[in-house]
Amino acid sequence: MKNISILGSTGSIGTAALDVIGGSPSMFKVVALSAGRNIGLLKDQIDRFKPKVASVLSEDIACQLRRMLDPSSTTEILCGVDGYNEVASVKEADMVVSAIVGAAGLLPTMEAIDAGKDIALANKETMVMAGNLVVEKAASKGAAILPVDSEHNAIFQCLAGSCREDVKRIILTASGGPFLYLAEKELSGVKVADALKHPNWKMGKKITIDSASMMNKGLEVIEAKWFFDIDIDKIDVCVHPQSIIHSMVEYIDGSIIAQLGVADMRGPISYALSYPERLSRTGSCLDLFEVRNLTFIPPDFEKFPNLKLACEAGKKGGTMPAVLNASNEVAVDAFIAGKIGFMDMPEVVKKTLSKHRRKEITSIGDVLEADKWARDQAAGYIKMKISNIEMKNEK
Amino acid sequence: MKNISILGSTGSIGTAALDVIGGSPSMFKVVALSAGRNIGLLKDQIDRFKPKVASVLSEDIACQLRRMLDPSSTTEILCGVDGYNEVASVKEADMVVSAIVGAAGLLPTMEAIDAGKDIALANKETMVMAGNLVVEKAASKGAAILPVDSEHNAIFQCLAGSCREDVKRIILTASGGPFLYLAEKELSGVKVADALKHPNWKMGKKITIDSASMMNKGLEVIEAKWFFDIDIDKIDVCVHPQSIIHSMVEYIDGSIIAQLGVADMRGPISYALSYPERLSRTGSCLDLFEVRNLTFIPPDFEKFPNLKLACEAGKKGGTMPAVLNASNEVAVDAFIAGKIGFMDMPEVVKKTLSKHRRKEITSIGDVLEADKWARDQAAGYIKMKISNIEMKNEK
Repeated sequence: MKNISILGSTGSIGTAALDVIGGSPSMFKVVALSAGRNIGLLKDQIDRFKPKVASVLSEDIACQLRRMLDPSSTTEILCGVDGYNEVASVKEADMVVSAIVGAAGLLPTMEAIDAGKDIALANKETMVMAGNLVVEKAASKGAAILPVDSEHNAIFQCLAGSCREDVKRIILTASGGPFLYLAEKELSGVKVADALKHPNWKMGKKITIDSASMMNKGLEVIEAKWFFDIDIDKIDVCVHPQSIIHSMVEYIDGSIIAQLGVADMRGPISYALSYPERLSRTGSCLDLFEVRNLTFIPPDFEKFPNLKLACEAGKKGGTMPAVLNASNEVAVDAFIAGKIGFMDMPEVVKKTLSKHRRKEITSIGDVLEADKWARDQAAGYIKMKISNIEMKNEK
Repeated sequence: MKNISILGSTGSIGTAALDVIGGSPSMFKVVALSAGRNIGLLKDQIDRFKPKVASVLSEDIACQLRRMLDPSSTTEILCGVDGYNEVASVKEADMVVSAIVGAAGLLPTMEAIDAGKDIALANKETMVMAGNLVVEKAASKGAAILPVDSEHNAIFQCLAGSCREDVKRIILTASGGPFLYLAEKELSGVKVADALKHPNWKMGKKITIDSASMMNKGLEVIEAKWFFDIDIDKIDVCVHPQSIIHSMVEYIDGSIIAQLGVADMRGPISYALSYPERLSRTGSCLDLFEVRNLTFIPPDFEKFPNLKLACEAGKKGGTMPAVLNASNEVAVDAFIAGKIGFMDMPEVVKKTLSKHRRKEITSIGDVLEADKWARDQAAGYIKMKISNIEMKNEK
């Protein structure tokens, strides 16, 4: 029996994780849950899994949730930073699923590692922003970090039983997103609704926009660097529109090991939760005769500047990836809010990175400082951009 | 340093193995070689690798070879069964590459296992004819058997670090051969030269014909059963015309691990020789952007009856696979000699199998007896077939 705590239980990864856990009640027990504001869903999860604690964003929301629960419920409802930290480090948990979206996932995940918990890591920002700290702390605390991202989970599977010295390169596959076949000049005019139509994966908004702009793949390159202790130069991206091969590893003898499966996050989540065992899948499996064709296309670094920006930031290291990530989060928010265009997103990231003075990361403080700086900077660019547009319109 | 002995050094696998060995002189030393009649090539190999012993088919050929060698050569030249057995069991060898074509490879391979040598097994007939004896003897002698067939080598790689209980099925890929897209009714008229044109692999004649008739895949199904201790019902065949994915393993969680590479036997040979390490490849590696497309097609059991015959024989077990193999060898010889047509080959195999009274295999004697019976029986059918044709022609 593995006791599981979930940071971000009402999101797309959190609900999929509970789906997997619910399917194997003899293997897993939920001991803690956390969400932001979605207390309707969190209440259902508490009713079903009866965790010891659950945490939400604020005391107000916590009060509302307490009123909604059956008086017989024994789940303790907490809130805010202390609440999330308790979910991250609750004594009973063997493994913490880190599934909060964005930079907000960093601190509770570090808390969980600090408490020596094994981590099923879906929050890629943790690795992107503070990879060196995460890897160091996990080693010193004896915490295993298992990848939930389908690509990194695939690589982890492709590395099984291998010797790291034999790895020549990692090949991260990318669906190419909804704009793979769109002409470069049309990209600036795409709508938010179009960017939210991912061809293969059902995911949250932020990551879906990142997929459309290829920033998601860029962040994954940096994530892979830390997860697998490999130079960015040895990580290649391969556009594979069917999203059937989730990633590959090439060995020095020219042999490539690939992991394939349907596009269903329950696959990698299940592997991360049950590793080193595997759980029987209940849903439909991959039918290669139905798929018939797998195709491979080189990524277009000109059309999607984010991928190049991310690889460069990853190579420079230090605070650069945190700045990349923060400025991108601000840009994505502005794009979703209709304030800037699709191609303004990489522009904001590029400008912010170009202004940043790289620092080494020696503490979480360094990360948070760079993150804050980048957000302010990016917000400034966006404000300027908007006022420029308004001035033009007034003329 | 690993000392290697090669049974069948002048064939397509043997020469590729020497290519790999020659490329890593600090890792491998050749201690013994054997060939049939090709003493021109064997002489060159002896000159280059200076083995302790070499063996050929007969005393006549051995005499010729001795005369060709430099008087300073210290290689002892042997011949016949005793010679092959010496190459198989020579004291200095750590690993024996079993690369003799067809049923003739069985006895020397058993000899090598008996001597406790690790085996790099290219001779699939050893497993097809006597799988249970091979597996038993290898276990009792502590001999590791490593697959050289590209498919089984791929499966071996895909199983690395896994737990056997987690394996759902094995997916053997097949190129489909030169007649994949030919209409069924045209198959009976194909020429030997057409059948020898394999689309992806350069191999010996026998295996190339078997690839065209899908018997090769059928034999591989039986081979996989023994190599990986898995029911034939859990082995599926997937036609994949590009021969890039060399085979796959599906796990119970729906995850599929695949091994990809260029169609070059030096890949699997190198892995079998150097396992658990990997050797750096010197030749060109797989470029997925050049390949662009991988396709998958269900096998056609009606058009290629051999595949079904082999799976059935494999399921029945006992002497049936040996009979399948022997009758097929006779049929392939007759086809290459122009005596029978392409679709007569499965007919001969089917008839021979249908007449056979299955026996359990408890010794090599049982295998050899079934093999001999099947050869006589198949030869009889072919004789009858030819005389029928001649009678028709005379009318």
